[in-house]
Amino acid sequence: MEGVWGNREVPAVSFKEDGAAALEWAARYLERVGDYPVLAQVQPGDITARLPASPPEQGEPFADVLRDLDEILLPGITHWQSPRFFAYFAVSAAEPGILAELLAATLNSVAFLWRTSPASTELEALTLGWTAQLLGLPAGWHGHIEDTASTSTIAALAAAREATGRGAVVCSEHAHSSVDKAAKLLGLELRKVPSDDEYRLRVDALDLSDAAALVATVGTTSTASVDPVPELADACAESGVWLHVDAAYAGSAWVCPELRWSQAGVDRADSLVVNAHKWLFTPMDCSLLWSRRPEDLRRAFSLVPEFLRTSDGVDSLSEYGPALGRRFRSLKLWAVLRCYGRAGLQARIREAVRLAEKFEKWVEEGPRWEVCAPRHFSLVCFRRDGSDEENEAIVERVNRSGEVFLSHTRLDGRYVLRLAIGNERTSEDDVRRAWEALNAD
Amino acid sequence: MEGVWGNREVPAVSFKEDGAAALEWAARYLERVGDYPVLAQVQPGDITARLPASPPEQGEPFADVLRDLDEILLPGITHWQSPRFFAYFAVSAAEPGILAELLAATLNSVAFLWRTSPASTELEALTLGWTAQLLGLPAGWHGHIEDTASTSTIAALAAAREATGRGAVVCSEHAHSSVDKAAKLLGLELRKVPSDDEYRLRVDALDLSDAAALVATVGTTSTASVDPVPELADACAESGVWLHVDAAYAGSAWVCPELRWSQAGVDRADSLVVNAHKWLFTPMDCSLLWSRRPEDLRRAFSLVPEFLRTSDGVDSLSEYGPALGRRFRSLKLWAVLRCYGRAGLQARIREAVRLAEKFEKWVEEGPRWEVCAPRHFSLVCFRRDGSDEENEAIVERVNRSGEVFLSHTRLDGRYVLRLAIGNERTSEDDVRRAWEALNAD
Repeated sequence: MEGVWGNREVPAVSFKEDGAAALEWAARYLERVGDYPVLAQVQPGDITARLPASPPEQGEPFADVLRDLDEILLPGITHWQSPRFFAYFAVSAAEPGILAELLAATLNSVAFLWRTSPASTELEALTLGWTAQLLGLPAGWHGHIEDTASTSTIAALAAAREATGRGAVVCSEHAHSSVDKAAKLLGLELRKVPSDDEYRLRVDALDLSDAAALVATVGTTSTASVDPVPELADACAESGVWLHVDAAYAGSAWVCPELRWSQAGVDRADSLVVNAHKWLFTPMDCSLLWSRRPEDLRRAFSLVPEFLRTSDGVDSLSEYGPALGRRFRSLKLWAVLRCYGRAGLQARIREAVRLAEKFEKWVEEGPRWEVCAPRHFSLVCFRRDGSDEENEAIVERVNRSGEVFLSHTRLDGRYVLRLAIGNERTSEDDVRRAWEALNAD
Repeated sequence: MEGVWGNREVPAVSFKEDGAAALEWAARYLERVGDYPVLAQVQPGDITARLPASPPEQGEPFADVLRDLDEILLPGITHWQSPRFFAYFAVSAAEPGILAELLAATLNSVAFLWRTSPASTELEALTLGWTAQLLGLPAGWHGHIEDTASTSTIAALAAAREATGRGAVVCSEHAHSSVDKAAKLLGLELRKVPSDDEYRLRVDALDLSDAAALVATVGTTSTASVDPVPELADACAESGVWLHVDAAYAGSAWVCPELRWSQAGVDRADSLVVNAHKWLFTPMDCSLLWSRRPEDLRRAFSLVPEFLRTSDGVDSLSEYGPALGRRFRSLKLWAVLRCYGRAGLQARIREAVRLAEKFEKWVEEGPRWEVCAPRHFSLVCFRRDGSDEENEAIVERVNRSGEVFLSHTRLDGRYVLRLAIGNERTSEDDVRRAWEALNAD
């Protein structure tokens, strides 16, 4: 930026030159991301120790920031963009989405009212409508973007509390910890229902007394199991309970018709969360929350103080969730949906599922290995014969090698390894390298 | 991205070429942002009507996205980056921060555990420490980043509820609406205390019975008034009430020693929020939350399910707030603090205050105008003689002209205009143009 600050011994930033250097750094990073150790090979405090404890008095060139990103921070980065990131749920920030983040930051829109950013407010509604079509959701649901599924769940449960006046939330023991967190925040009692031998909520153990909401999960965190949503929807309808469906990971799979079996009953949900930053190739953060009862969300969150009163009569999306200021998050989703199209999204989802099937087969055929839960999407749960400690040691060993990054869970009291495929760069060779690393001791 | 998708009739995105075009678009935008109508001159639905109702089946080139951003979305953008954006609190996304967002999206870190992104976890703690030093805050406070002040306030009040077990929140009638929203979400009773003739919380009217927290505001939304924090800290200490200070806008001013009078008593706060995306030149979203009682935040939010258990013994910042997944937000703050330095931040804050003083003087000397509240920072509250309707008509006229964008508030029942200076591009000429536009009827 030129101008008045140039007269104050503050070095000018050259957006074009510095931007070209930043872009070059980003391009090289994406080209080489597969060469880095996937899990950062540093100890707690290592990065801090290499950075100055105090900020500079005078401005420094942006080139120095870029240099330190490369030399100091990069060794402390766990590479979520790596094709051999198989931990948690593997994700991708697709290139059109990355560039859209540059544009969104340039515009710096703060969409707390329609008039403060008409384009981002309308594009948000439009892209949520587009995504609903891609996923085969019912027409007419209200959609908006929150930062994470944690916040989407808070919003949904707050609406359920508002709508029902009741004090409990019910979910399976395999529901995500964000449900616990939301219930605690909202002062709701949380009741966990046991799951069956395929890690699905057991309808016969359901108790909906005083329940404001039931959270059903399509694609649980541990095993990607699918709760029996049709039966749960029946039970909710009978008891006047809000049905919130957490499909943060697996919902994106519905872009493929052959995976829509897992959507059964979701059309009867009161609210639904799907994280576009999980398996829809959109950079963090972009959690999509739909509801067929948006008026209850508004009742839970709408407050219009004088300084926000306008005469345009248009709803603001900030009236449907906790935050007031809202980034232009829809721009990156729009960029990804347009540059990939339905066909590109399907191809990527199908490839991830194909690779997971491949890996599952290797595990099944490996003499010392077993698959520990049914595989539905792109997540394989498995372990080797031997103790929990031996399995934990395998995970620690492969993660420490930098070759791959895997995470774990615990099923029926046993330590279980998880291999999640979701990065669009992952090839069959990458999955093979994971398998070889696991077997390399 | 090249590779497997190129074989599937999905057009490849060229990160370098498309990136160069995006960067060029961003650079031209920033050069010309002062030429656009500040407030978008569109009607509700105009943007939606120009976009396809359904997503594409096949992927499209990124160039088409950029073209539509330019031709369709741009007319629907309200230009927060314009030097003549004077509404709400004017903000700036500084160029180093914009480029850092490109880099953060490229890395796509999801910092829900230290190990999933050591660099971003440690840089977040470091930059919060740097900012605390710049603002002259006590050493040793725990700091982390939330998306917006709404979320920071939710986190602080949840911690206060956890720490005290009480059921009420107390704030001035001029506190931000996010306090109302947080109280409702948390199921806390909200009690508003009247303010004095300078819009500061009246200590003599304070009732802290059953109060979990008192929210004191330094820089209220309507007038940037400063609550009497030292007296409020006394009262809180006496009653065991959590003192949360909302300095979302004005806290950044503390980078200048001559404005630190407004920090009196803040060293005794239990928690403090300052939005770096408001007046610290950082792109949305970047709300800084400090606390001297981080254990209470952890107690309110920490839940460690099996799949997140690690052996590194390091706290995750996700244990201090509602969200689990966290973007690499500290990168942009770090870039801005480094490229501007203390001197650059001070120069920009001082220039905004100088321009506000200038405008205030014109209002005072304008025969038909009056200043309606004491000016402390870079916000001027004023009105012209005549009715509320006449003043409202002035705001509507200047906003519709596109020349400037102002907002309003209501003080003692009267409609009052607000001119907020905070965009780093704003020059004296821009402020003069606002004054001329106001007087142009």
